[in-house]
Amino acid sequence: MSAVDPRLSINQATIKHADLETALRVTADAGIQAIGLWREPVYEVGLDVAARMLADSGLRFTTHCRGGFFTLPEGPGRVAALDDNRRAIEETATLAAAGADGSKAVLVLVAGGLPEGSRDLIGARERVRDAIGALAPFAQEAGVTLAIEPLHPMYASDRAVVSTLGQALDIAADFEPEVVGAAVDTFHIWWDPQVLEQIARAGREGRISTYQVCDWKTPLPADVLLSRHYTGDGVIDFGSLTEAVIATGYDRDIEVEIFNADIWADAPEHVVRRTAETFGAAVSPHLA
Amino acid sequence: MSAVDPRLSINQATIKHADLETALRVTADAGIQAIGLWREPVYEVGLDVAARMLADSGLRFTTHCRGGFFTLPEGPGRVAALDDNRRAIEETATLAAAGADGSKAVLVLVAGGLPEGSRDLIGARERVRDAIGALAPFAQEAGVTLAIEPLHPMYASDRAVVSTLGQALDIAADFEPEVVGAAVDTFHIWWDPQVLEQIARAGREGRISTYQVCDWKTPLPADVLLSRHYTGDGVIDFGSLTEAVIATGYDRDIEVEIFNADIWADAPEHVVRRTAETFGAAVSPHLA
Repeated sequence: MSAVDPRLSINQATIKHADLETALRVTADAGIQAIGLWREPVYEVGLDVAARMLADSGLRFTTHCRGGFFTLPEGPGRVAALDDNRRAIEETATLAAAGADGSKAVLVLVAGGLPEGSRDLIGARERVRDAIGALAPFAQEAGVTLAIEPLHPMYASDRAVVSTLGQALDIAADFEPEVVGAAVDTFHIWWDPQVLEQIARAGREGRISTYQVCDWKTPLPADVLLSRHYTGDGVIDFGSLTEAVIATGYDRDIEVEIFNADIWADAPEHVVRRTAETFGAAVSPHLA
Repeated sequence: MSAVDPRLSINQATIKHADLETALRVTADAGIQAIGLWREPVYEVGLDVAARMLADSGLRFTTHCRGGFFTLPEGPGRVAALDDNRRAIEETATLAAAGADGSKAVLVLVAGGLPEGSRDLIGARERVRDAIGALAPFAQEAGVTLAIEPLHPMYASDRAVVSTLGQALDIAADFEPEVVGAAVDTFHIWWDPQVLEQIARAGREGRISTYQVCDWKTPLPADVLLSRHYTGDGVIDFGSLTEAVIATGYDRDIEVEIFNADIWADAPEHVVRRTAETFGAAVSPHLA
């Protein structure tokens, strides 16, 4: 078996059922140098303990998942969502400080879908922009970058009204690149006829906050949220996308984030090894 | 019950299990004035008989579904696909001539997905352009408009590598508007952040070959191909989309095309009535 790519980061969602201790251990044991965390397993141990565990692991911290879900109109629900995002920003700063050298304080934002009973997609998108405007000063103060993640359009109604990289960059354009950027995830944007030019634009504008990879294949499972695969198992051309990202000068870690019921049912030790192998085969050759 | 909208056309896929005779009868009996046909039920009776039945029905003919599926590389498969598309063009011309005054000779084109084992999305898209180039002179000679239908990006790998209206218009731009246009279907494009400007562009460029409506809602069914709904049952804002289409000067029929297992299991008489009612409530108010 070849060496693990030093730029590979395991997003914790890939081993969803592992607790934080297990996730850190299996990642480090596999020779992987970086990890992206999710808020729920951090809460299970508490933020301070989680930060200490992360520091002890020696892993770099690449992203915190996730904030967002702020498409509600004015009211208590929106206030609560913004408060929760402020907590997520604080967590991100704490974890990034605990990670090994090269860690980044990046909070991934999933916009949220249409509010129940609403058909006002344009209004929901405006509220995303407003929410980011409300959070940006707080993020800047904390030294955290908010990474707007465009999600595949099949999630536009119920999960994320931000559907393309171009749209994410249009929203980010109102803010400093250190404060608001975009998450570039192959699964969500591979189909976009404008993807290569928008990746180039994201690079020019200094907005690639994180590059995430996993694969797309059909038929989609009954729950389309779980339709992600190891790199190389589907139809995404990791060559053209990765080369476009690298051409912008992106030199940081690359996360693998997979939601897949079969992979979640597998042993986490096996999943991280398989992730490293498939990343080495499908992505590493394009990182030259 | 209010009068049926005179611009409503039933796309035959909405009553998929009805044969041609039944489809024509229930549509006319419901007071609907127009229909879009599919090739398979036409074949069941033969083209000449189908044309006579259509003429006898007194209905306008709005589209023929469908051509396309021409993403294969050079070889016998591609030759067969192009031959089949030429037959579809001839059928379209014959049926449009048999329909009532106001019929249009429009052949809907679904591009096709990635060839088996391929990850070359850009190449597949180039082959779509080349195929349309090969078919355009034949369509022009037959007086048929080829309507490139962008399909929702969740079908990009296995059904249609044309995913946005903007992309369809970019392909169409190489040809005369009478020969190559686009199908504007709310289900496929409602999520697109550029949808309103691309509808306006399609109008300016004379490329709205057909306007089709049905609704989107989640959760998606296990077979995502069957995730379409009556207008008003989901989250699509038919106001903004329909007004954008009408603002371009589009003054022709509007098809309802629904793929939905429950609706297909229902009696076709009931489905066309329900289609007319829901169209009257969700779409007609925006046709002023």
